[in-house]
Amino acid sequence: MKIVHSEAHARHDPQFFLMRGIAKASTEQPERAERLLAAASAAGHAVEAPEAFGPGPRAAVHTPEYLRFLETAHAEWQGLGDSAPEIVPNVHPNRYPAGYPASIVGRAGWHMADTACPIGPGTFAAACAAGDVATAAAEHLLDGGDHIYGLCRPPGHHAYADMAGGFCFLNNSAIAAQRLRQAYDRVAILDVDVHHGNGTQGIFWRRSDVLTVSLHADPLHFYPFFWGHAGERGEGDGEGYNLNLPLPLGTGDADWLEALERQAFATIRAFAPGALVVALGLDAFEGDPLRGLAITTPGFAMMGAAIARLGLPTALIQEGGYLAPELGDNLVSFLSGFEGAR
Amino acid sequence: MKIVHSEAHARHDPQFFLMRGIAKASTEQPERAERLLAAASAAGHAVEAPEAFGPGPRAAVHTPEYLRFLETAHAEWQGLGDSAPEIVPNVHPNRYPAGYPASIVGRAGWHMADTACPIGPGTFAAACAAGDVATAAAEHLLDGGDHIYGLCRPPGHHAYADMAGGFCFLNNSAIAAQRLRQAYDRVAILDVDVHHGNGTQGIFWRRSDVLTVSLHADPLHFYPFFWGHAGERGEGDGEGYNLNLPLPLGTGDADWLEALERQAFATIRAFAPGALVVALGLDAFEGDPLRGLAITTPGFAMMGAAIARLGLPTALIQEGGYLAPELGDNLVSFLSGFEGAR
Repeated sequence: MKIVHSEAHARHDPQFFLMRGIAKASTEQPERAERLLAAASAAGHAVEAPEAFGPGPRAAVHTPEYLRFLETAHAEWQGLGDSAPEIVPNVHPNRYPAGYPASIVGRAGWHMADTACPIGPGTFAAACAAGDVATAAAEHLLDGGDHIYGLCRPPGHHAYADMAGGFCFLNNSAIAAQRLRQAYDRVAILDVDVHHGNGTQGIFWRRSDVLTVSLHADPLHFYPFFWGHAGERGEGDGEGYNLNLPLPLGTGDADWLEALERQAFATIRAFAPGALVVALGLDAFEGDPLRGLAITTPGFAMMGAAIARLGLPTALIQEGGYLAPELGDNLVSFLSGFEGAR
Repeated sequence: MKIVHSEAHARHDPQFFLMRGIAKASTEQPERAERLLAAASAAGHAVEAPEAFGPGPRAAVHTPEYLRFLETAHAEWQGLGDSAPEIVPNVHPNRYPAGYPASIVGRAGWHMADTACPIGPGTFAAACAAGDVATAAAEHLLDGGDHIYGLCRPPGHHAYADMAGGFCFLNNSAIAAQRLRQAYDRVAILDVDVHHGNGTQGIFWRRSDVLTVSLHADPLHFYPFFWGHAGERGEGDGEGYNLNLPLPLGTGDADWLEALERQAFATIRAFAPGALVVALGLDAFEGDPLRGLAITTPGFAMMGAAIARLGLPTALIQEGGYLAPELGDNLVSFLSGFEGAR
């Protein structure tokens, strides 16, 4: 399978991570991409770098205000003095009506949902490169390709049009889907990451041209907590074009695959998209450090095969999946399952 | 002057404080109240403890959901395992539509705006005692008293009906104002803290029976960043019943007092309240660690005298003011200025 990847991912090397009040090393480390790349290369997949597409593709799903923040915030933060090497928000507007703040501390809280997405000096460059990877993956399909894997890092599916969160800055899956709209009237995004794809849901919340479907650990007891419930179906034109399938913590291969085939696929087939973007988190793995679901390594092959059998032009976009020893095996398992069924 | 104070304040002893990405000791320490009390006592003011008023007064301004959270959250947080001794939120819904979360991590982000209000084992008891102090101050006026000082800690004016923030949990000034509504059709709150009284504004945002007026350092470059701008005037029935007077950073006595007399007092006199609550932050002091405005120690006496000359039954409710050596002097200066003009 053709793989797109950018070495610029390593310019984002987050250090700060506050969880349950305790500062820890971030789970979203450059080594994730290195392990995925090594495993895919060892399995014989060809890797190439994306071209630079410029600001257009990211501007098609993110707001100018937010992109300006991501690009300029770190320099401004450093200028504060008495500030940490990375931007970490400490005050948020939450649901109260509020004006867009002028101070960089205020803008950090406005544009960042949580403490899991610190912005360092290379974060914007890395996020843009991941967006280029996603765009290149979409371009491959637009050029007539059948399927492709975009090894994006940092991941993207928790990023809204104007808000970072959960290790994510630019929504790579949304960027790919939006790009695919150049040729296809309807595009579906299937999110198999252990976490709800809340940013992707938010971006397409009021749209009927991009269907968003997410299988994930039930947010009653799992990040992102506020979003991902079954009742969230979209609004306005988008009503009925968002499907959430929250699964009990610890759900394994059989029940996961049943939800995929019976519920997710039924909705995708009824939508009849011209192309499919898979938000390919590998953190539903039973041994993932985040411990949400319990997909096995062979389970990822079944997942890949099932998705391949939808028969749609497919861009696989890397999302989560953390430093379990089997991380690379799970990717290779998914890719081989997919190719075997194509 | 009669002073009400509860020693239970010391049960809230916050440790965690994240500012500009750096963990520091909290600025809101028990020693604040100890210094204020010692200075007021040394100046001859009589101190008494409040009675326990039960849940009624706080339930009159806060939601049941939020009060339940404050009361039970710490025990639930401890039960998570792998959690810090204090509750610190790490993920927030911000402005995206979201359902009320089940998980304690989600509820922390829902009910807390920032990292400056960690909840420890004694926080709820201390906050309730501060609410009792505010209620006792209101009761003193309801019983025919002319004026009184409630030495509340933790402070309150950043707390919304359902959200903690900026060292605040229960909104003591709002509790006092609401209590005063038992006898007065119209009550005014005048907030002289260096920070905008955003929680107080939020609680009375749609009401015309409680006027909220705040003088503060311009939130363009100062906490709470999102709120406190001049254009925020209330909504619905409350439109025109909120007045924000943001002042340039570094504003001193003369300009501050001019804004008070010309703008704040004109609005308060036109409203013709039956009683006044002063949200008495002392952090507009030129030597306060937070360095927003530049009121001098004699300036606080002028402030107190000016407010006294409004001639309204007045409950002075302690808000911010941090560990400058002159903290106690500033309180005594304000109180003597007030009494001298009464």
